Amino acid sequence: MGENGSTNEGNRVKYRRTKSVTRAEEIIEKDYKQRRSQPDKPCHRPQDSLFTWSSGFNNFTGLVNWGFLLLTMGGFRLLLENFIKYGIRIDPMQWYIVLTGKNEGEGFPSLILTLYTLVPILICLLVEKGLSVEIIAEGLGIFIHVINIVVLVLIPVVIIHTHGHIFSLIGASFVCFSYSILFMKLWSYVQVNMWCRHDSVSPKSSKSRKRTQSVSIAQIQKNSAQKNGTDGVDGIKKEVHHPESLVQYPQNLHLMDLLYFLLAPTLCYELNFPRTSRIRKRFLLKRILEVVIGVNVVMALFQQWMIPSVRNSLIPFSNMDLANSSVRLLKLAIPNHLVWLCFFYLIFHSFLNLLGELLQFADRNFYCDWWNANSIDTFWRNWNMPVHRWCVRHLYIPIVDMGFGKTGASITVFFISAFFHEYLVSIPLRIFKVWAFMGMMGQIPLSWVSNFARKRFGPRWGNTIVWSSLIIGQPLAIMMYYHDYIVTHYNEVLVEA
Amino acid sequence: MGENGSTNEGNRVKYRRTKSVTRAEEIIEKDYKQRRSQPDKPCHRPQDSLFTWSSGFNNFTGLVNWGFLLLTMGGFRLLLENFIKYGIRIDPMQWYIVLTGKNEGEGFPSLILTLYTLVPILICLLVEKGLSVEIIAEGLGIFIHVINIVVLVLIPVVIIHTHGHIFSLIGASFVCFSYSILFMKLWSYVQVNMWCRHDSVSPKSSKSRKRTQSVSIAQIQKNSAQKNGTDGVDGIKKEVHHPESLVQYPQNLHLMDLLYFLLAPTLCYELNFPRTSRIRKRFLLKRILEVVIGVNVVMALFQQWMIPSVRNSLIPFSNMDLANSSVRLLKLAIPNHLVWLCFFYLIFHSFLNLLGELLQFADRNFYCDWWNANSIDTFWRNWNMPVHRWCVRHLYIPIVDMGFGKTGASITVFFISAFFHEYLVSIPLRIFKVWAFMGMMGQIPLSWVSNFARKRFGPRWGNTIVWSSLIIGQPLAIMMYYHDYIVTHYNEVLVEA
Repeated sequence: MGENGSTNEGNRVKYRRTKSVTRAEEIIEKDYKQRRSQPDKPCHRPQDSLFTWSSGFNNFTGLVNWGFLLLTMGGFRLLLENFIKYGIRIDPMQWYIVLTGKNEGEGFPSLILTLYTLVPILICLLVEKGLSVEIIAEGLGIFIHVINIVVLVLIPVVIIHTHGHIFSLIGASFVCFSYSILFMKLWSYVQVNMWCRHDSVSPKSSKSRKRTQSVSIAQIQKNSAQKNGTDGVDGIKKEVHHPESLVQYPQNLHLMDLLYFLLAPTLCYELNFPRTSRIRKRFLLKRILEVVIGVNVVMALFQQWMIPSVRNSLIPFSNMDLANSSVRLLKLAIPNHLVWLCFFYLIFHSFLNLLGELLQFADRNFYCDWWNANSIDTFWRNWNMPVHRWCVRHLYIPIVDMGFGKTGASITVFFISAFFHEYLVSIPLRIFKVWAFMGMMGQIPLSWVSNFARKRFGPRWGNTIVWSSLIIGQPLAIMMYYHDYIVTHYNEVLVEA
Repeated sequence: MGENGSTNEGNRVKYRRTKSVTRAEEIIEKDYKQRRSQPDKPCHRPQDSLFTWSSGFNNFTGLVNWGFLLLTMGGFRLLLENFIKYGIRIDPMQWYIVLTGKNEGEGFPSLILTLYTLVPILICLLVEKGLSVEIIAEGLGIFIHVINIVVLVLIPVVIIHTHGHIFSLIGASFVCFSYSILFMKLWSYVQVNMWCRHDSVSPKSSKSRKRTQSVSIAQIQKNSAQKNGTDGVDGIKKEVHHPESLVQYPQNLHLMDLLYFLLAPTLCYELNFPRTSRIRKRFLLKRILEVVIGVNVVMALFQQWMIPSVRNSLIPFSNMDLANSSVRLLKLAIPNHLVWLCFFYLIFHSFLNLLGELLQFADRNFYCDWWNANSIDTFWRNWNMPVHRWCVRHLYIPIVDMGFGKTGASITVFFISAFFHEYLVSIPLRIFKVWAFMGMMGQIPLSWVSNFARKRFGPRWGNTIVWSSLIIGQPLAIMMYYHDYIVTHYNEVLVEA
C-alpha cells in the first residue's frame, strides 16, 4: 500500500522499490521513469484495483469498526422504537411484588419450602456422623442418603403440583433452584465423605498420605514466614490464607462446616477449601454495587423490552405464521440475549464473587472464556464452572471409573443435565412439555455440527455456531414455553385475542 | 488460559508451571499439592474470575463473531419485516422507464444535451490545434478555453432550470454528471497541453528530457525482447504493453486521442497512458456480469427498501418530531448505506474496470482502502481516486506552486468539491438549498474532530468517526433534500397526508 499512498501525491510520486523487484517489474518501472521525464507530468501506472484478486490486498480491519458501529446504531434504534411504541414500562413497585412474592397466597409458601431444606440437611449430617462412628452400617447409611436426596428433589414437584395456585412464578423458580443446588451439594458432601472413609480403612494409601502430609506441613510452616513476600502475584493469590494444618476426615463432620459448604459458591465439597486471609472491602463494595445495579438493569430490560416482545410473538406463533414468527423470534432474540448476558455477568461474576468474598472463599473460577468457544462442548465446559466441575468430579469420573467408558459417561452427564433443565422450567410453569429436555439433548447433534464446522471451515465458524445456538435457541424456547403456558393456564385469553 | 483449561478436568489437574513462577506462587502451589494428597480429591485452587482486572485475561476474539452474527440477524430481520410490510415492490418495468427517460417530455432532452457536449469538445481541440501551430496567441487561447468550460458547466444549470418539467430526475442527474466530468477532463487536457507547450519553449529542460528519453527508448527496445518473461508479476502488470516510442507534444492533438481520454476511466490527461497489450476475456466477462447484476441489486434495494423508508420519514421530519425522526433516520441509514456500498463497488470496481479493460487502460487504481481510513481527510483522499488525483494534479499542486500555501490549496480544493456536490444535487432536483455544499464544507471541522479522536483515543476511534459520518451523514442529507423537494414541488401532497 506504500505505492498507492505515494501515487496519491499525484505526479510527485517517489517510486519505492519493494523487496522482490522482478525482471518484469523492472521493465515496468523503467517504462514509468521514462514516461515521467515527459513534460505532461504523467500520474498513471499499471496497477490492479484492490478488489481484484491479483492485487493481493487483504486489509479490511476497518470493517470490524463498521460492524460494531452498525450494531450500536441498530441497538439504539430498537431502544428508541421500543420507547416510542410502549412508553416507559419500568415500574420498580411491580418488581418488589414479584420478587417478594406479595401476590402469592397466604403465608409465603416459597419461604416455608426453602426453610424446610434444613430437615434433609440435618438428616444428611446425622447419617454421616453415624457412619463415621460406625453406629450405622455403610449400606444402610448410603440407602438413607439416597432416599433423602431423592425425596429432597421430589418435594417441589409434589408441593408445587398440588398447591400450584398459591405459588408465584418467581417463588416457585427460587424453590426449584434451591432444591436442585442442594441436591448437588449434598450428593457431593456424601460422596466426598465416603471417599475419606474408604481411604481411612485402606491402610496403604493412608500411610502414604500421612507421610506426604507431614512433609508438606513442615514445608508450609517453613514457608509461612515468607508468605507476605507476595512478589509478582496479583489479585486473589495475594490474599491466600495458608492454614497451619489441614482438617482430617471425621473432624469435618459438624454443622458449621456443612453450612459453610452450602453457602459457598461451589457445588464440590472438600475438607479444606482454599481461603483468603481477609475480606477486601473495595472489591466487596464493587460487587455489591454491581449486584444492585445489575438486578435493576435486568428487571428494567425484562419489563420494558422482553415482555412486550414475548407477548407480541404469541399470535403469529400460535397461527404457525412462519414469516411473522421469524420476525418476532429475531426481534425477541436481541433483548433476550442482552438480558442473558447481563444475567450471566450478574450471577457468575458479581453475585458469586460477592458470596466468595464474604465467605473468604479463594477459588473464583466460576466461568471460563466461553465467548471464544469453538464448539458446543467447549461452551458447555466453560460457561458454568461450578456445575461443570460437579459433573466431572461426581458423575463423569466415577462413571468412567466404574468402567462405562467416556461416551457412556458423557451421555449420562448430558441426560442428567437435560433432566435438571426440564425440572427448573416445567415445575415453576406447571406445564410438562419436554422442550427444555429436548433442547439439552439436541446439544449432542449440535455439537457434532459445530465440530464439523470447526474442522471443515475453521474455528471462526465453530464459534459462530455456538453464538447462533445461544442467540436463537433461547428465544425459541421462551416463545414455545410462553405459548404453551398461555394455552394451558389462560386459554380464554388466547381465544379472545 | 492453559491453567483454566486444565482445571476443567476436575481433580485430574496437571499443574503447569508458567515461566514466571514466583515465590508466592510456589507457596500456593505447594499448598495445593499438599491438599491434593488428601482423600477428598480437592478441586479448588485460589484463582480470580476472568472479568476481574487482576486476572490479566483479555482474549475476546469470539466477540467479533458475535458482532457479525448479530448484524447478519438484524439485517435478515429488517429484510423480512420489509417484505411483510410492503410486499414485493421490485418492478423492473419501472426501472426501464426511469433509466431510459420514457416519462420525460417529447424528444429525449437528456440525450440531446449529452450529445451537445461534442460542441465544447471540438472547440477545445480546435483551439489547442491553433495554439500548437501558433495561429492563436497564448492569452487569447486560454481565454477561449476558460469561457468554453465555464459555459459548458453552466449549460445544464440554465437548460434544466428553464425547461425543468421535460427532464426526468435520472436524465437530469446523468446530464449533470456528464457535464461535470467533461469539465474536469477538458481542464486537465488544456492544462497538460499548456505544460507541454511551455516545456518545448524552455530549451534547457527540453534538452534534458530528450537525452533521458533517447536513453530510455534504447533501453526499452533492448528490454522488449524479454518482455514476455513476466516472472513473479501478477494481474495487470503481466499484460502491460511496452510502446516502442512515446508520443510527443503536437502529435497528440487529434480527435481520436482526445476521445480516448474522454472515455478512459481517468480525469487526468497524459500523452502516453499506460496500456495493456490485450483485452482479458474472462476479466471482461466477470465485470460485465457484475455490472448487470449490480445494477439490478441496486435498483431492487432502492425500490424495495429505500423509497418506503424515505417516504415514511417525511411526516416526522416535517413536524420536527425528534424521537420519530431519529428512528426514521436510523432505519433509513441501513438500506442507504447498503445501496451506497453496492453502488461504490458497482461504479468504482465493476464499471471502471470494465471501461479500463475495453480501452486497454492499465491504471486501475480507482479507489484505495478508504474502509481503513483513520481520519476524514484520509477517507476523502482514498475513496475516489480519479477525482482525488485530478484535484491534486490540477488544483492543489498548481495552487501551491503559485505560492498560496498548503492550507489555502486544501481549502480551495474543498470549496470546489463542495460546489460540485451541490451542483450534482441541486440542478437535477431543481431546489437551491445549500445542504450538500454545507455538508462538504462541514467535512473540514469534522476532519479536525476525527484527527483529534485518532490522536487522543487511537486509530479505531478515528475510523469509527469516518464510518459514522458516512452512515449517518448521507441519510440525513437525503431526508433533508427529499423533504425540501416535496415541499417545493408537491406541497399539496404534504398538506394532504
